[in-house]
Amino acid sequence: MDSLPRAAAVLVVAGTHGNERNAPWLLQHWQRQPASLASAGLRLELVLGNPAAHGRNQRYLERDLNRSFRSDLLADPQAQGPELERARQLLALHGPEGERPCAVAFDLHSTTSAMGNSLVLYGRRPADLALAAALQARLGLPIYLHEGDPSQTGFLVECWPCGLVIEVGPVPQGVIQAPICRQTQLALEAALAVLAEARQGCLRLPPRLWVHRHLASLDLPRSADGTPLACLHPLRQHRDWRPIAPADPLFLEPNGAVIPYQPSPQLEGLAARGELVPVFINEAAYGEKGIALSFTQRQVLACEAGWVEGLKAVAARLDLVAG
Amino acid sequence: MDSLPRAAAVLVVAGTHGNERNAPWLLQHWQRQPASLASAGLRLELVLGNPAAHGRNQRYLERDLNRSFRSDLLADPQAQGPELERARQLLALHGPEGERPCAVAFDLHSTTSAMGNSLVLYGRRPADLALAAALQARLGLPIYLHEGDPSQTGFLVECWPCGLVIEVGPVPQGVIQAPICRQTQLALEAALAVLAEARQGCLRLPPRLWVHRHLASLDLPRSADGTPLACLHPLRQHRDWRPIAPADPLFLEPNGAVIPYQPSPQLEGLAARGELVPVFINEAAYGEKGIALSFTQRQVLACEAGWVEGLKAVAARLDLVAG
Repeated sequence: MDSLPRAAAVLVVAGTHGNERNAPWLLQHWQRQPASLASAGLRLELVLGNPAAHGRNQRYLERDLNRSFRSDLLADPQAQGPELERARQLLALHGPEGERPCAVAFDLHSTTSAMGNSLVLYGRRPADLALAAALQARLGLPIYLHEGDPSQTGFLVECWPCGLVIEVGPVPQGVIQAPICRQTQLALEAALAVLAEARQGCLRLPPRLWVHRHLASLDLPRSADGTPLACLHPLRQHRDWRPIAPADPLFLEPNGAVIPYQPSPQLEGLAARGELVPVFINEAAYGEKGIALSFTQRQVLACEAGWVEGLKAVAARLDLVAG
Repeated sequence: MDSLPRAAAVLVVAGTHGNERNAPWLLQHWQRQPASLASAGLRLELVLGNPAAHGRNQRYLERDLNRSFRSDLLADPQAQGPELERARQLLALHGPEGERPCAVAFDLHSTTSAMGNSLVLYGRRPADLALAAALQARLGLPIYLHEGDPSQTGFLVECWPCGLVIEVGPVPQGVIQAPICRQTQLALEAALAVLAEARQGCLRLPPRLWVHRHLASLDLPRSADGTPLACLHPLRQHRDWRPIAPADPLFLEPNGAVIPYQPSPQLEGLAARGELVPVFINEAAYGEKGIALSFTQRQVLACEAGWVEGLKAVAARLDLVAG
């Protein structure tokens, strides 16, 4: 005999990275004044992602919490540390089958890159694609579709049946700026409104969706000891979402020499056709990951009927705020 | 019998704060290729300020190195810790009477505030004022004159007979951006050229100098537990060096309410006359110091003959690179 799935909330996580300060500040405000966040009637769980790292204004203590939601690590009793402990705790509390279960997760991030107000999807789950398509139709948000990168795994939202990252920038680490907060709130409120429509069964998707599909990441040129030999060219800085073409200025050496972009054979055709689009350009936290920018391919996807059905199935579990 | 003062170099410090990455990156380049920095023939000591903090990409380990050059602390054997140790070490090595003595210190900083390319002076030492006046005449750099703030003391350059901070922004912590590097190098090269002229006795100052004299700092409105109740208004963000007037938008509450600027009685007249100028607006590292911005008074100083004499006396000790 199957047990009925329990009613679930929407999980809203801020401060998964402890030096991203805008969403946690908003979260505090929403906790004090719930009416200040238009939740479209949905019951929310508002959670600070990594309180210990937040308290120290550091991205993380021992490892990136947003790369720690890997089933192999979470299941391994030998794998310990504050971030893995926190990941397990979040799942035990707010996982799909947790104490206070959540069926959808929104993870609110900021970046030093000029990503604007944007969404990050991990893979092509139908419910996520429906949510992203409806959000893009409302607010025009660009979408970074992260898939097929074995060096970058273990993202928080992947542990919930549906969820995405709202990524807003540019803003320095450790700094709160009103427009970043405003954009974060707008995107979250729109996402909650879409979920409420899916729950009511009246959600309609646009005919198509623009995505920027992750292809590869590029590091700065470095010496044998790891020192960067060049920085990003000023004509690349703050140009996230704009195509890069072969021979465009890419890096600048400290002596002023320009290193133009020379695409690998795999990317040459895309670059020549204007379909190769860099994102997360000069994100402060990605230096340690060896990422100066990531290349994406701009693609149009036709929305499928199955996507809405997927989102409806998830949203059916969501319950409303009391009263 | 007086000993003759020994020949001295110019101290150039980068990375006094470990998460300011632009100047340390340049420094590494200059160390590898000395010809890439136009030193006007002067012998330099190029030093990474806080290597331990730099290695961890943190501003400091235990205390701000650039508030640690206080004679009381430096002389107190009970006062220990990595930053105090480093301050004593820098003085022992490169202090005016150190092993490899330096007579002038340039401390290269970056900031998340939109300070542009700017100078910070600590007090009104004649040699510093001459240097700043000549630099302003060449490059038009605005000058923040920091004095009379008992809560902010112990700055590195104060321990050398002459010296100033070159402060460039906005740039996030942990990020290298080519224009920030370029501005840093331009200001440093101009400063070295001025010193060389003073050494040769041919330096001439402009008739006057604009400074922005520190008056007071302002914190965000906070609740009893220290939580910020508002952030800076978007119309203040990135408006360093621009006067603020009474009733101008100052803070923004998360609910959208605007808190206008209400000057204290002491500042009211200045604000009304357009002479009150905020700087270091929303600098990431100043949150912990309770500083959302600092107020300055824009003032014109007539250059004095004694300033050039002061700078000449310091510059006379400087020796040239061999060969």
